[in-house]
Amino acid sequence: MSFDLPAYLSERRVIVDAALDKYLPTADQEPDNLHASIRYSIFCGGKRLRPILALAAADAVGCDFSHVTPLACALECIHTFSLIHDDLPAIDDDALRRGAPTNHVVYGEAMAILAGDALLAFAFELIAECRAFCPADRVLEALVMVAQASGTRGMVGGQVSDIECEGRTDVDEKTVASIHERKTGALLIASLVAGARLCGASGAQENALRRYGEKIGLAFQITDDILDLEGDAEKLGKPLGSDLKQDKATYPKILGIEESRTLANRAAEDAIAALSIFDEKADPLRALARYMVERDN
Amino acid sequence: MSFDLPAYLSERRVIVDAALDKYLPTADQEPDNLHASIRYSIFCGGKRLRPILALAAADAVGCDFSHVTPLACALECIHTFSLIHDDLPAIDDDALRRGAPTNHVVYGEAMAILAGDALLAFAFELIAECRAFCPADRVLEALVMVAQASGTRGMVGGQVSDIECEGRTDVDEKTVASIHERKTGALLIASLVAGARLCGASGAQENALRRYGEKIGLAFQITDDILDLEGDAEKLGKPLGSDLKQDKATYPKILGIEESRTLANRAAEDAIAALSIFDEKADPLRALARYMVERDN
Repeated sequence: MSFDLPAYLSERRVIVDAALDKYLPTADQEPDNLHASIRYSIFCGGKRLRPILALAAADAVGCDFSHVTPLACALECIHTFSLIHDDLPAIDDDALRRGAPTNHVVYGEAMAILAGDALLAFAFELIAECRAFCPADRVLEALVMVAQASGTRGMVGGQVSDIECEGRTDVDEKTVASIHERKTGALLIASLVAGARLCGASGAQENALRRYGEKIGLAFQITDDILDLEGDAEKLGKPLGSDLKQDKATYPKILGIEESRTLANRAAEDAIAALSIFDEKADPLRALARYMVERDN
Repeated sequence: MSFDLPAYLSERRVIVDAALDKYLPTADQEPDNLHASIRYSIFCGGKRLRPILALAAADAVGCDFSHVTPLACALECIHTFSLIHDDLPAIDDDALRRGAPTNHVVYGEAMAILAGDALLAFAFELIAECRAFCPADRVLEALVMVAQASGTRGMVGGQVSDIECEGRTDVDEKTVASIHERKTGALLIASLVAGARLCGASGAQENALRRYGEKIGLAFQITDDILDLEGDAEKLGKPLGSDLKQDKATYPKILGIEESRTLANRAAEDAIAALSIFDEKADPLRALARYMVERDN
Protein backbone atom coordinates (compact mmCIF):
# COMPACT_ATOMS: atom_id res chain seq x y z
CA MET A 1 0.00 0.00 0.00
CA SER A 2 1.35 3.44 -0.88
CA PHE A 3 -0.78 5.48 1.51
CA ASP A 4 1.24 8.47 2.76
CA LEU A 5 0.40 8.47 6.48
CA PRO A 6 2.80 11.24 7.59
CA ALA A 7 1.25 13.64 5.05
CA TYR A 8 -2.27 12.56 6.07
CA LEU A 9 -1.53 12.98 9.78
CA SER A 10 0.00 16.40 9.32
CA GLU A 11 -2.87 17.61 7.10
CA ARG A 12 -5.47 16.40 9.59
CA ARG A 13 -3.57 17.87 12.55
CA VAL A 14 -3.68 21.27 10.88
CA ILE A 15 -7.45 20.93 10.39
CA VAL A 16 -8.02 19.83 13.99
CA ASP A 17 -5.77 22.54 15.42
CA ALA A 18 -7.50 25.24 13.39
CA ALA A 19 -10.91 24.02 14.56
CA LEU A 20 -9.79 23.89 18.20
CA ASP A 21 -8.43 27.40 17.89
CA LYS A 22 -11.76 28.55 16.46
CA TYR A 23 -13.91 26.87 19.09
CA LEU A 24 -11.94 27.49 22.30
CA PRO A 25 -12.36 30.80 24.13
CA THR A 26 -9.37 33.06 23.53
CA ALA A 27 -6.96 34.01 26.32
CA ASP A 28 -8.08 37.65 26.18
CA GLN A 29 -11.56 36.66 27.43
CA GLU A 30 -12.22 36.64 31.18
CA PRO A 31 -11.15 34.75 33.20
CA ASP A 32 -8.04 35.12 31.04
CA ASN A 33 -5.82 32.91 33.21
CA LEU A 34 -8.29 30.04 32.89
CA HIS A 35 -8.44 30.33 29.11
CA ALA A 36 -4.65 30.65 28.91
CA SER A 37 -4.29 27.52 31.03
CA ILE A 38 -6.72 25.59 28.81
CA ARG A 39 -4.98 26.70 25.61
CA TYR A 40 -1.56 25.93 27.08
CA SER A 41 -2.42 22.25 27.47
CA ILE A 42 -4.50 21.95 24.29
CA PHE A 43 -1.79 23.46 22.08
CA CYS A 44 1.11 21.62 23.67
CA GLY A 45 1.93 19.43 20.68
CA GLY A 46 -0.43 16.45 20.99
CA LYS A 47 -0.72 13.82 18.27
CA ARG A 48 -4.48 14.51 17.87
CA LEU A 49 -4.97 10.76 17.66
CA ARG A 50 -8.58 10.69 18.87
CA PRO A 51 -9.75 13.52 16.57
CA ILE A 52 -7.97 11.91 13.63
CA LEU A 53 -9.63 8.55 14.36
CA ALA A 54 -13.06 10.22 14.39
CA LEU A 55 -12.37 11.95 11.07
CA ALA A 56 -10.91 8.76 9.56
CA ALA A 57 -14.00 6.80 10.65
CA ALA A 58 -16.12 9.37 8.79
CA ASP A 59 -13.87 8.89 5.73
CA ALA A 60 -14.22 5.12 5.96
CA VAL A 61 -18.03 5.19 5.90
CA GLY A 62 -17.98 7.63 2.96
CA CYS A 63 -19.03 10.77 4.84
CA ASP A 64 -17.68 14.33 4.60
CA PHE A 65 -15.24 14.41 7.53
CA SER A 66 -15.97 18.07 8.20
CA HIS A 67 -19.37 16.96 9.60
CA VAL A 68 -17.64 15.41 12.60
CA THR A 69 -15.07 18.13 13.27
CA PRO A 70 -16.83 19.40 16.42
CA LEU A 71 -16.84 15.83 17.77
CA ALA A 72 -13.14 15.53 16.87
CA CYS A 73 -12.36 18.69 18.85
CA ALA A 74 -14.47 17.48 21.78
CA LEU A 75 -12.45 14.26 21.94
CA GLU A 76 -9.22 16.25 22.16
CA CYS A 77 -10.73 18.40 24.94
CA ILE A 78 -11.61 15.25 26.89
CA HIS A 79 -8.19 13.70 26.28
CA THR A 80 -6.47 16.91 27.41
CA PHE A 81 -8.71 17.20 30.49
CA SER A 82 -7.66 13.68 31.48
CA LEU A 83 -3.96 14.45 30.99
CA ILE A 84 -4.15 17.63 33.08
CA HIS A 85 -5.90 15.83 35.94
CA ASP A 86 -3.71 12.69 35.72
CA ASP A 87 -0.58 14.84 35.98
CA LEU A 88 -1.75 16.49 39.25
CA PRO A 89 0.35 15.97 42.38
CA ALA A 90 -2.48 13.98 43.99
CA ILE A 91 -2.62 11.55 41.05
CA ASP A 92 0.50 10.76 38.93
CA ASP A 93 2.46 13.85 40.02
CA ASP A 94 4.13 14.41 36.63
CA ALA A 95 6.02 17.66 36.07
CA LEU A 96 6.77 17.18 32.37
CA ARG A 97 4.63 16.22 29.38
CA ARG A 98 5.47 16.52 25.69
CA GLY A 99 8.71 18.25 26.67
CA ALA A 100 7.00 21.05 28.59
CA PRO A 101 6.05 21.66 32.22
CA THR A 102 2.62 20.23 33.03
CA ASN A 103 -0.39 22.50 33.52
CA HIS A 104 -0.30 22.65 37.32
CA VAL A 105 3.43 23.43 37.30
CA VAL A 106 2.74 26.53 35.17
CA TYR A 107 -0.73 27.61 36.37
CA GLY A 108 -0.98 26.07 39.84
CA GLU A 109 -3.06 23.17 41.07
CA ALA A 110 -6.35 25.03 41.48
CA MET A 111 -6.26 26.33 37.91
CA ALA A 112 -5.24 22.91 36.54
CA ILE A 113 -8.19 21.23 38.28
CA LEU A 114 -10.59 23.90 37.01
CA ALA A 115 -9.14 23.98 33.47
CA GLY A 116 -9.69 20.22 33.24
CA ASP A 117 -13.24 20.59 34.52
CA ALA A 118 -13.98 23.33 31.99
CA LEU A 119 -12.60 21.26 29.11
CA LEU A 120 -14.82 18.32 30.04
CA ALA A 121 -17.96 20.49 30.16
CA PHE A 122 -16.96 22.24 26.94
CA ALA A 123 -16.54 18.92 25.13
CA PHE A 124 -20.26 18.18 25.44
CA GLU A 125 -21.17 21.65 24.23
CA LEU A 126 -18.97 20.97 21.18
CA ILE A 127 -20.51 17.59 20.41
CA ALA A 128 -23.90 19.29 20.36
CA GLU A 129 -22.50 21.53 17.58
CA CYS A 130 -22.66 18.51 15.27
CA ARG A 131 -26.39 19.29 15.11
CA ALA A 132 -25.51 21.67 12.26
CA PHE A 133 -24.68 18.66 10.06
CA CYS A 134 -26.31 15.59 11.61
CA PRO A 135 -29.77 14.61 12.91
CA ALA A 136 -30.25 15.44 16.60
CA ASP A 137 -30.95 11.79 17.48
CA ARG A 138 -27.59 10.66 16.20
CA VAL A 139 -25.83 13.55 17.92
CA LEU A 140 -27.30 12.47 21.26
CA GLU A 141 -26.31 8.86 20.65
CA ALA A 142 -22.73 9.88 19.81
CA LEU A 143 -22.65 12.12 22.87
CA VAL A 144 -23.73 9.29 25.16
CA MET A 145 -20.99 7.05 23.73
CA VAL A 146 -18.38 9.69 24.53
CA ALA A 147 -19.80 10.38 28.00
CA GLN A 148 -19.78 6.66 28.85
CA ALA A 149 -16.23 6.26 27.54
CA SER A 150 -15.14 9.16 29.77
CA GLY A 151 -16.85 8.22 33.02
CA THR A 152 -16.83 5.47 35.62
CA ARG A 153 -17.14 2.66 33.07
CA GLY A 154 -14.45 4.25 30.89
CA MET A 155 -11.51 6.57 31.37
CA VAL A 156 -12.12 7.69 34.97
CA GLY A 157 -12.87 4.14 36.11
CA GLY A 158 -9.72 2.85 34.42
CA GLN A 159 -7.64 5.55 36.05
CA VAL A 160 -9.00 4.60 39.48
CA SER A 161 -8.16 0.91 38.90
CA ASP A 162 -4.72 1.91 37.62
CA ILE A 163 -4.00 3.84 40.83
CA GLU A 164 -5.33 0.98 42.95
CA CYS A 165 -2.99 -1.49 41.22
CA GLU A 166 0.16 0.58 41.79
CA GLY A 167 2.73 -1.39 43.77
CA ARG A 168 0.71 -4.61 43.74
CA THR A 169 2.60 -7.78 42.76
CA ASP A 170 -0.45 -9.97 42.06
CA VAL A 171 -1.68 -8.13 38.95
CA ASP A 172 -2.28 -10.46 35.97
CA GLU A 173 -2.62 -9.80 32.23
CA LYS A 174 -6.41 -9.76 32.45
CA THR A 175 -6.33 -6.95 35.02
CA VAL A 176 -3.83 -4.92 33.00
CA ALA A 177 -6.03 -5.37 29.92
CA SER A 178 -9.14 -4.30 31.82
CA ILE A 179 -7.41 -1.16 33.12
CA HIS A 180 -6.28 -0.09 29.68
CA GLU A 181 -9.49 -1.02 27.92
CA ARG A 182 -11.15 1.53 30.16
CA LYS A 183 -8.38 4.09 30.62
CA THR A 184 -7.41 4.48 26.95
CA GLY A 185 -9.32 1.94 24.87
CA ALA A 186 -12.84 3.18 25.60
CA LEU A 187 -12.25 6.71 24.29
CA LEU A 188 -10.39 5.45 21.20
CA ILE A 189 -13.35 3.18 20.40
CA ALA A 190 -15.82 5.99 21.09
CA SER A 191 -13.86 8.27 18.74
CA LEU A 192 -14.36 5.80 15.91
CA VAL A 193 -17.89 4.62 16.61
CA ALA A 194 -19.33 8.03 17.56
CA GLY A 195 -17.75 9.48 14.39
CA ALA A 196 -19.35 6.72 12.34
CA ARG A 197 -22.71 7.05 14.13
CA LEU A 198 -22.88 10.75 13.30
CA CYS A 199 -22.43 9.79 9.64
CA GLY A 200 -25.24 7.23 9.69
CA ALA A 201 -23.00 4.15 9.55
CA SER A 202 -24.58 0.68 9.45
CA GLY A 203 -24.48 -1.68 12.42
CA ALA A 204 -21.93 -3.86 10.59
CA GLN A 205 -19.69 -0.85 9.96
CA GLU A 206 -19.89 0.21 13.62
CA ASN A 207 -19.09 -3.31 14.80
CA ALA A 208 -16.05 -3.47 12.52
CA LEU A 209 -14.83 -0.11 13.80
CA ARG A 210 -15.38 -1.19 17.41
CA ARG A 211 -13.32 -4.34 16.83
CA TYR A 212 -10.64 -2.24 15.08
CA GLY A 213 -10.68 0.19 18.02
CA GLU A 214 -10.25 -2.59 20.58
CA LYS A 215 -7.21 -3.88 18.73
CA ILE A 216 -5.50 -0.52 18.10
CA GLY A 217 -6.19 0.39 21.71
CA LEU A 218 -4.25 -2.68 22.80
CA ALA A 219 -1.44 -2.01 20.30
CA PHE A 220 -1.29 1.62 21.40
CA GLN A 221 -1.08 0.82 25.09
CA ILE A 222 1.54 -1.92 24.82
CA THR A 223 3.64 0.42 22.66
CA ASP A 224 3.23 3.14 25.28
CA ASP A 225 4.46 0.77 27.97
CA ILE A 226 7.46 -0.28 25.83
CA LEU A 227 8.35 3.32 24.93
CA ASP A 228 8.37 4.18 28.64
CA LEU A 229 11.13 1.57 29.04
CA GLU A 230 13.07 1.72 25.76
CA GLY A 231 12.01 4.92 24.00
CA ASP A 232 13.88 8.13 23.30
CA ALA A 233 13.21 10.53 26.16
CA GLU A 234 13.73 13.53 23.88
CA LYS A 235 11.19 12.34 21.30
CA LEU A 236 8.75 11.36 24.07
CA GLY A 237 9.17 14.72 25.78
CA LYS A 238 9.33 13.11 29.22
CA PRO A 239 11.79 11.01 31.21
CA LEU A 240 11.72 7.24 30.74
CA GLY A 241 10.80 4.79 33.47
CA SER A 242 7.86 6.66 35.01
CA ASP A 243 5.77 3.45 35.07
CA LEU A 244 8.56 1.63 36.89
CA LYS A 245 8.96 4.51 39.33
CA GLN A 246 5.26 4.36 40.19
CA ASP A 247 5.28 0.55 40.01
CA LYS A 248 2.41 0.62 37.50
CA ALA A 249 0.74 -2.47 36.13
CA THR A 250 2.13 -2.68 32.54
CA TYR A 251 2.40 -5.30 29.78
CA PRO A 252 6.23 -5.54 29.91
CA LYS A 253 6.02 -6.03 33.67
CA ILE A 254 3.65 -9.00 33.24
CA LEU A 255 4.79 -10.52 29.91
CA GLY A 256 8.33 -9.30 29.35
CA ILE A 257 9.30 -6.94 26.55
CA GLU A 258 9.58 -9.41 23.65
CA GLU A 259 6.23 -11.05 24.24
CA SER A 260 4.70 -7.59 24.65
CA ARG A 261 6.09 -6.55 21.27
CA THR A 262 4.68 -9.69 19.62
CA LEU A 263 1.28 -9.04 21.19
CA ALA A 264 1.27 -5.42 19.94
CA ASN A 265 2.12 -6.46 16.38
CA ARG A 266 -0.56 -9.13 16.37
CA ALA A 267 -3.10 -6.59 17.66
CA ALA A 268 -2.22 -4.20 14.81
CA GLU A 269 -2.72 -7.03 12.28
CA ASP A 270 -6.04 -7.98 13.87
CA ALA A 271 -7.11 -4.33 13.67
CA ILE A 272 -6.43 -4.25 9.94
CA ALA A 273 -8.25 -7.55 9.47
CA ALA A 274 -11.30 -6.09 11.23
CA LEU A 275 -11.60 -3.52 8.43
CA SER A 276 -12.18 -6.10 5.67
CA ILE A 277 -15.72 -4.85 4.94
CA PHE A 278 -14.37 -1.38 4.05
CA ASP A 279 -12.88 -0.31 0.72
CA GLU A 280 -9.84 1.92 0.17
CA LYS A 281 -11.53 4.79 2.00
CA ALA A 282 -10.41 2.97 5.18
CA ASP A 283 -6.74 3.04 4.12
CA PRO A 284 -5.96 5.83 6.61
CA LEU A 285 -7.27 3.59 9.41
CA ARG A 286 -5.18 0.67 8.11
CA ALA A 287 -2.07 2.84 8.07
CA LEU A 288 -2.91 4.16 11.55
CA ALA A 289 -2.99 0.59 12.91
CA ARG A 290 0.64 0.12 11.82
CA TYR A 291 1.55 3.55 13.18
CA MET A 292 0.32 2.48 16.63
CA VAL A 293 3.20 0.01 16.99
CA GLU A 294 5.82 1.87 14.90
CA ARG A 295 5.57 5.32 16.50
CA ASP A 296 8.43 6.70 18.58
CA ASN A 297 6.42 9.17 20.64
CA MET B 1 -50.89 32.18 49.83
CA SER B 2 -51.28 28.87 51.59
CA PHE B 3 -48.77 26.86 49.58
CA ASP B 4 -47.10 24.28 51.83
CA LEU B 5 -43.46 24.61 50.77
CA PRO B 6 -41.91 22.29 53.39
CA ALA B 7 -44.21 19.46 52.28
CA TYR B 8 -43.50 20.22 48.62
CA LEU B 9 -39.73 20.29 49.19
CA SER B 10 -39.70 17.08 51.13
CA GLU B 11 -41.89 15.28 48.56
CA ARG B 12 -39.68 16.43 45.69
CA ARG B 13 -36.47 15.55 47.55
CA VAL B 14 -37.73 11.99 47.94
CA ILE B 15 -38.44 11.83 44.19
CA VAL B 16 -35.01 13.24 43.28
CA ASP B 17 -33.18 11.00 45.74
CA ALA B 18 -34.95 7.90 44.47
CA ALA B 19 -34.10 8.83 40.87
CA LEU B 20 -30.45 9.52 41.74
CA ASP B 21 -30.27 6.18 43.51
CA LYS B 22 -31.70 4.47 40.43
CA TYR B 23 -29.39 6.18 37.94
CA LEU B 24 -26.05 6.18 39.77
CA PRO B 25 -23.85 3.07 39.62
CA THR B 26 -24.03 1.14 42.90
CA ALA B 27 -21.04 0.83 45.22
CA ASP B 28 -20.78 -2.92 44.55
CA GLN B 29 -19.83 -2.23 40.92
CA GLU B 30 -16.14 -1.86 40.01
CA PRO B 31 -14.32 0.36 40.73
CA ASP B 32 -16.27 0.12 43.98
CA ASN B 33 -14.29 2.82 45.79
CA LEU B 34 -15.07 5.32 43.04
CA HIS B 35 -18.78 4.58 43.16
CA ALA B 36 -18.76 4.69 46.97
CA SER B 37 -17.03 8.08 46.83
CA ILE B 38 -19.58 9.43 44.33
CA ARG B 39 -22.52 8.18 46.39
CA TYR B 40 -21.00 9.51 49.59
CA SER B 41 -21.12 13.08 48.29
CA ILE B 42 -24.39 12.76 46.40
CA PHE B 43 -26.28 11.34 49.39
CA CYS B 44 -24.78 13.69 51.96
CA GLY B 45 -27.98 15.61 52.69
CA GLY B 46 -28.14 18.27 50.00
CA LYS B 47 -31.17 20.55 49.59
CA ARG B 48 -31.64 19.36 45.96
CA LEU B 49 -32.34 22.97 45.04
CA ARG B 50 -31.32 22.75 41.38
CA PRO B 51 -33.30 19.56 40.68
CA ILE B 52 -36.33 21.02 42.46
CA LEU B 53 -36.08 24.22 40.37
CA ALA B 54 -36.02 22.16 37.16
CA LEU B 55 -39.06 20.16 38.26
CA ALA B 56 -40.87 23.31 39.41
CA ALA B 57 -40.19 25.00 36.05
CA ALA B 58 -41.80 22.00 34.35
CA ASP B 59 -44.79 22.38 36.73
CA ALA B 60 -45.03 26.10 35.93
CA VAL B 61 -45.25 25.54 32.17
CA GLY B 62 -47.87 22.81 32.68
CA CYS B 63 -45.70 19.80 31.90
CA ASP B 64 -45.44 16.43 33.65
CA PHE B 65 -42.40 16.98 35.89
CA SER B 66 -41.35 13.35 35.55
CA HIS B 67 -40.24 14.19 31.99
CA VAL B 68 -37.38 16.28 33.33
CA THR B 69 -36.28 13.97 36.16
CA PRO B 70 -33.08 12.87 34.35
CA LEU B 71 -32.17 16.55 33.86
CA ALA B 72 -32.92 17.20 37.54
CA CYS B 73 -30.54 14.40 38.57
CA ALA B 74 -27.88 15.67 36.16
CA LEU B 75 -28.03 19.11 37.78
CA GLU B 76 -27.39 17.58 41.20
CA CYS B 77 -24.47 15.58 39.79
CA ILE B 78 -22.95 18.80 38.43
CA HIS B 79 -23.58 20.67 41.68
CA THR B 80 -22.00 17.83 43.69
CA PHE B 81 -19.01 17.63 41.31
CA SER B 82 -18.41 21.35 41.89
CA LEU B 83 -18.63 20.99 45.68
CA ILE B 84 -16.19 18.06 45.73
CA HIS B 85 -13.65 19.96 43.63
CA ASP B 86 -14.14 23.28 45.43
CA ASP B 87 -13.47 21.58 48.77
CA LEU B 88 -10.09 20.19 47.59
CA PRO B 89 -6.96 21.34 49.43
CA ALA B 90 -5.73 23.13 46.29
CA ILE B 91 -8.96 25.18 46.06
CA ASP B 92 -11.00 26.06 49.18
CA ASP B 93 -9.44 23.38 51.42
CA ASP B 94 -12.65 22.65 53.33
CA ALA B 95 -12.74 19.62 55.61
CA LEU B 96 -16.43 19.76 56.53
CA ARG B 97 -19.60 20.10 54.48
CA ARG B 98 -23.19 19.47 55.55
CA GLY B 99 -21.86 18.29 58.90
CA ALA B 100 -19.71 15.54 57.43
CA PRO B 101 -16.07 15.22 56.34
CA THR B 102 -15.60 16.32 52.73
CA ASN B 103 -14.99 13.78 49.98
CA HIS B 104 -11.20 14.08 49.85
CA VAL B 105 -10.96 13.75 53.65
CA VAL B 106 -12.71 10.39 53.45
CA TYR B 107 -11.55 9.02 50.07
CA GLY B 108 -8.31 10.91 49.41
CA GLU B 109 -7.54 13.66 46.95
CA ALA B 110 -7.04 11.47 43.88
CA MET B 111 -10.43 9.80 44.33
CA ALA B 112 -12.15 13.13 45.03
CA ILE B 113 -10.79 14.63 41.82
CA LEU B 114 -11.83 11.57 39.81
CA ALA B 115 -15.26 11.26 41.48
CA GLY B 116 -15.97 14.88 40.52
CA ASP B 117 -14.83 14.22 36.96
CA ALA B 118 -17.02 11.14 36.69
CA LEU B 119 -20.06 13.03 38.01
CA LEU B 120 -19.61 15.76 35.41
CA ALA B 121 -19.37 13.26 32.54
CA PHE B 122 -22.31 11.27 33.92
CA ALA B 123 -24.48 14.39 34.06
CA PHE B 124 -24.45 14.71 30.27
CA GLU B 125 -25.26 11.04 29.84
CA LEU B 126 -28.25 11.62 32.14
CA ILE B 127 -29.51 14.69 30.26
CA ALA B 128 -29.51 12.59 27.09
CA GLU B 129 -31.93 10.23 28.91
CA CYS B 130 -34.59 12.92 28.55
CA ARG B 131 -34.81 11.66 24.95
CA ALA B 132 -37.31 9.12 26.26
CA PHE B 133 -39.83 11.93 26.87
CA CYS B 134 -38.73 14.94 24.81
CA PRO B 135 -37.73 15.63 21.17
CA ALA B 136 -33.98 15.18 20.58
CA ASP B 137 -33.58 18.79 19.41
CA ARG B 138 -34.84 20.16 22.69
CA VAL B 139 -32.72 17.73 24.69
CA LEU B 140 -29.61 18.98 22.89
CA GLU B 141 -30.60 22.61 23.50
CA ALA B 142 -31.14 21.95 27.21
CA LEU B 143 -27.83 20.09 27.37
CA VAL B 144 -25.96 23.01 25.82
CA MET B 145 -27.51 25.39 28.37
CA VAL B 146 -26.28 23.19 31.22
CA ALA B 147 -22.81 22.75 29.68
CA GLN B 148 -22.43 26.50 29.24
CA ALA B 149 -23.60 27.18 32.77
CA SER B 150 -21.00 24.71 34.05
CA GLY B 151 -17.96 25.81 32.05
CA THR B 152 -15.72 28.83 31.60
CA ARG B 153 -18.61 31.26 31.13
CA GLY B 154 -20.43 29.77 34.11
CA MET B 155 -19.55 27.90 37.26
CA VAL B 156 -15.88 27.12 36.58
CA GLY B 157 -15.20 30.67 35.34
CA GLY B 158 -16.89 32.13 38.43
CA GLN B 159 -14.85 29.90 40.71
CA VAL B 160 -11.62 31.06 39.03
CA SER B 161 -12.60 34.73 39.47
CA ASP B 162 -13.59 34.02 43.07
CA ILE B 163 -10.15 32.57 43.81
CA GLU B 164 -8.45 35.46 42.04
CA CYS B 165 -10.36 37.99 44.17
CA GLU B 166 -9.37 36.40 47.50
CA GLY B 167 -7.52 38.89 49.68
CA ARG B 168 -8.04 41.82 47.33
CA THR B 169 -9.31 45.04 48.88
CA ASP B 170 -10.42 46.77 45.65
CA VAL B 171 -13.33 44.44 44.85
CA ASP B 172 -16.59 46.32 44.16
CA GLU B 173 -20.24 45.21 44.15
CA LYS B 174 -20.21 44.72 40.36
CA THR B 175 -17.31 42.27 40.60
CA VAL B 176 -18.96 40.34 43.45
CA ALA B 177 -22.17 40.18 41.41
CA SER B 178 -20.30 38.94 38.33
CA ILE B 179 -18.55 36.20 40.32
CA HIS B 180 -21.78 34.91 41.78
CA GLU B 181 -23.80 35.23 38.58
CA ARG B 182 -21.34 32.75 37.10
CA LYS B 183 -20.44 30.64 40.13
CA THR B 184 -23.98 29.95 41.37
CA GLY B 185 -26.45 31.99 39.29
CA ALA B 186 -25.74 30.41 35.90
CA LEU B 187 -26.58 26.86 36.97
CA LEU B 188 -29.70 27.98 38.87
CA ILE B 189 -30.92 29.75 35.71
CA ALA B 190 -30.00 26.76 33.54
CA SER B 191 -31.97 24.49 35.89
CA LEU B 192 -35.09 26.54 35.28
CA VAL B 193 -34.72 27.35 31.59
CA ALA B 194 -33.42 23.92 30.51
CA GLY B 195 -36.31 22.33 32.43
CA ALA B 196 -38.75 24.62 30.65
CA ARG B 197 -37.11 24.08 27.25
CA LEU B 198 -37.49 20.31 27.55
CA CYS B 199 -41.20 20.92 28.12
CA GLY B 200 -41.60 23.10 25.04
CA ALA B 201 -42.00 26.39 26.92
CA SER B 202 -42.60 29.61 24.95
CA GLY B 203 -39.93 32.30 24.61
CA ALA B 204 -41.88 34.54 27.00
CA GLN B 205 -42.04 31.77 29.59
CA GLU B 206 -38.29 31.11 29.29
CA ASN B 207 -37.52 34.81 29.61
CA ALA B 208 -39.65 35.08 32.74
CA LEU B 209 -37.92 32.06 34.24
CA ARG B 210 -34.51 33.48 33.36
CA ARG B 211 -35.37 36.73 35.10
CA TYR B 212 -36.71 34.82 38.08
CA GLY B 213 -33.52 32.75 38.14
CA GLU B 214 -31.29 35.83 38.11
CA LYS B 215 -33.13 37.24 41.09
CA ILE B 216 -33.28 34.09 43.20
CA GLY B 217 -29.61 33.53 42.39
CA LEU B 218 -28.82 36.91 43.90
CA ALA B 219 -31.07 36.30 46.91
CA PHE B 220 -29.53 32.86 47.41
CA GLN B 221 -25.97 34.10 47.29
CA ILE B 222 -26.43 37.07 49.61
CA THR B 223 -28.20 34.78 52.08
CA ASP B 224 -25.30 32.35 51.82
CA ASP B 225 -22.86 35.15 52.61
CA ILE B 226 -24.97 36.31 55.59
CA LEU B 227 -25.37 32.76 56.94
CA ASP B 228 -21.61 32.33 56.82
CA LEU B 229 -21.40 35.27 59.25
CA GLU B 230 -24.54 34.99 61.37
CA GLY B 231 -25.93 31.51 60.80
CA ASP B 232 -26.16 28.48 63.08
CA ALA B 233 -23.06 26.37 62.50
CA GLU B 234 -24.91 23.22 63.50
CA LYS B 235 -27.74 23.78 61.01
CA LEU B 236 -25.24 24.76 58.31
CA GLY B 237 -23.12 21.69 59.00
CA LYS B 238 -19.90 23.69 58.77
CA PRO B 239 -18.06 26.29 60.85
CA LEU B 240 -18.99 29.95 60.38
CA GLY B 241 -16.62 32.56 59.01
CA SER B 242 -15.00 30.53 56.21
CA ASP B 243 -15.44 33.47 53.78
CA LEU B 244 -13.72 35.80 56.24
CA LYS B 245 -10.93 33.30 56.80
CA GLN B 246 -10.25 33.10 53.07
CA ASP B 247 -10.89 36.84 52.68
CA LYS B 248 -13.52 36.12 49.99
CA ALA B 249 -15.34 38.82 48.07
CA THR B 250 -18.85 38.78 49.64
CA TYR B 251 -21.88 41.08 49.77
CA PRO B 252 -21.61 41.78 53.52
CA LYS B 253 -17.95 42.68 53.03
CA ILE B 254 -18.85 45.26 50.36
CA LEU B 255 -22.28 46.52 51.51
CA GLY B 256 -22.51 45.71 55.21
CA ILE B 257 -24.95 43.18 56.61
CA GLU B 258 -28.12 45.32 56.80
CA GLU B 259 -27.90 46.59 53.23
CA SER B 260 -27.13 43.03 52.10
CA ARG B 261 -30.30 41.80 53.80
CA THR B 262 -32.38 44.52 52.14
CA LEU B 263 -30.92 43.65 48.75
CA ALA B 264 -31.71 39.96 49.24
CA ASN B 265 -35.32 40.67 50.19
CA ARG B 266 -35.79 42.97 47.22
CA ALA B 267 -34.32 40.31 44.90
CA ALA B 268 -36.82 37.74 46.22
CA GLU B 269 -39.70 40.18 45.57
CA ASP B 270 -38.41 40.88 42.05
CA ALA B 271 -38.20 37.14 41.43
CA ILE B 272 -41.85 36.72 42.35
CA ALA B 273 -42.82 39.71 40.18
CA ALA B 274 -41.04 38.10 37.21
CA LEU B 275 -43.51 35.19 37.40
CA SER B 276 -46.58 37.35 36.68
CA ILE B 277 -47.33 35.60 33.35
CA PHE B 278 -47.71 32.26 35.15
CA ASP B 279 -50.82 30.99 36.96
CA GLU B 280 -50.95 29.11 40.25
CA LYS B 281 -48.87 26.29 38.80
CA ALA B 282 -45.89 28.58 39.50
CA ASP B 283 -46.75 28.83 43.21
CA PRO B 284 -43.93 26.45 44.16
CA LEU B 285 -41.48 28.82 42.43
CA ARG B 286 -43.02 31.80 44.25
CA ALA B 287 -42.64 30.04 47.59
CA LEU B 288 -39.08 29.03 46.69
CA ALA B 289 -38.16 32.70 46.12
CA ARG B 290 -39.11 33.47 49.72
CA TYR B 291 -37.34 30.37 50.95
CA MET B 292 -34.10 31.67 49.39
CA VAL B 293 -33.91 34.47 51.95
CA GLU B 294 -35.63 32.73 54.88
CA ARG B 295 -33.63 29.47 54.92
CA ASP B 296 -31.27 28.70 57.78
CA ASN B 297 -29.02 26.26 55.95
